[in-house]
Amino acid sequence: MGNTATAQKATIIVFADTLDKVMAAFIIATTAAAMGMATTMFFTFWGLGALKKGGPADCKRNWMQKMLAWMLPKSPASLPLSQLNMAGIGAGMLKKIMAQKKIASLPELIESARDLGVRMIACQMSMDAMGICREELIGDIEVAGAATYVGEAQDAQINLFVS
Amino acid sequence: MGNTATAQKATIIVFADTLDKVMAAFIIATTAAAMGMATTMFFTFWGLGALKKGGPADCKRNWMQKMLAWMLPKSPASLPLSQLNMAGIGAGMLKKIMAQKKIASLPELIESARDLGVRMIACQMSMDAMGICREELIGDIEVAGAATYVGEAQDAQINLFVS
Amino acid sequence: MGNTATAQKATIIVFADTLDKVMAAFIIATTAAAMGMATTMFFTFWGLGALKKGGPADCKRNWMQKMLAWMLPKSPASLPLSQLNMAGIGAGMLKKIMAQKKIASLPELIESARDLGVRMIACQMSMDAMGICREELIGDIEVAGAATYVGEAQDAQINLFVS
Repeated sequence: MGNTATAQKATIIVFADTLDKVMAAFIIATTAAAMGMATTMFFTFWGLGALKKGGPADCKRNWMQKMLAWMLPKSPASLPLSQLNMAGIGAGMLKKIMAQKKIASLPELIESARDLGVRMIACQMSMDAMGICREELIGDIEVAGAATYVGEAQDAQINLFVS
Repeated sequence: MGNTATAQKATIIVFADTLDKVMAAFIIATTAAAMGMATTMFFTFWGLGALKKGGPADCKRNWMQKMLAWMLPKSPASLPLSQLNMAGIGAGMLKKIMAQKKIASLPELIESARDLGVRMIACQMSMDAMGICREELIGDIEVAGAATYVGEAQDAQINLFVS
Repeated sequence: MGNTATAQKATIIVFADTLDKVMAAFIIATTAAAMGMATTMFFTFWGLGALKKGGPADCKRNWMQKMLAWMLPKSPASLPLSQLNMAGIGAGMLKKIMAQKKIASLPELIESARDLGVRMIACQMSMDAMGICREELIGDIEVAGAATYVGEAQDAQINLFVS
């Protein structure tokens, strides 16, 4: 499939912080990586929520950023659904159904992505804007800017924006 | 335009179930197909709502999936707007304006897509998760997984994610 | 990076009218343009809000389109956030934080995009549907249809749909 002369590449921008959309991004990313594509995920804005470790973090934040941190999901485990969330009941039901159907959960997908060598990048500018610091994010995340994303995307076969 | 040696291809992932976004996906898909591109639409998660026939269906569902089926749109005709829906008034007004302006409706766009040979695929994993069965969907839909999508997308010129 | 034989191209469909998503689109577009890519933004549906001049406009609208015009953002300055908007407080706070962090504002990004030669196209069909007329939009915008978009996208390296 495609041009086999050069390595195939895929990039996905993860802008959303809802369980359904973040799962979709990781399903595509892990599938592409499993099929041999060098795959990069670029987490920006709300999407940074998918990379949070959870637990307390000692970031320097002004009062507006403190409010934001308080209102946003604390980790992948607390992401809502983009619709029918019903204060978390919908998200809980979806997780339950998926477990019954033996569909990988989000934490499992993130683990798979790491095992498959998916490159995960947190957007520097978004971290600055939202007052999210490096230590809040899971271990092996790169921090970079939009130019790094464009550089990756311009010779990739698949580029998606998940918002 | 582009590389004319090989056939041009386009893929669109339809993740959303709102009238405005599903119409946008079909407008791009039918335009690409009309311009000679081999076009594939991959319907996943909420996007499966755009492929429902409407009417009763005898799927096996657990009680959570029954609730979900009851809450989700029953067919393309009942899709809401992503904003200003106002309990369907907004969607109704948009359809009315579009009819006045002789813009194709969603059912007409779906019909066009079929006539133009657009390949429509329903995501197997999403159907499992949401308890949507084959007989609920319109006739000529393929059912496949993420690997089929990635295989198509990796040698397509246009790949979009409509969420 | 990529194929250097031909000029690199990027396209971004802007379907959303929220501050966060429109800014993301402009950040990618200006970055791509600054890196030498011929970049096109195609504004459709709600996304047209990002191109409004603001101030009164004398468009011909039926009563449904008048209601729509009244409910939608009047200019880039009045775009809401896609979440945590809280009647504009969230959007205001984000703008304030971004100014403190010396991150370019949306009006500055639009100005940059023009300076960098980003081609901005308003979708004709969306303008018809929503009753938005040419004189409401900022000066140097082209008006075209989906075929123009597909023509651009099919030989671009990066194609994104921001919804």
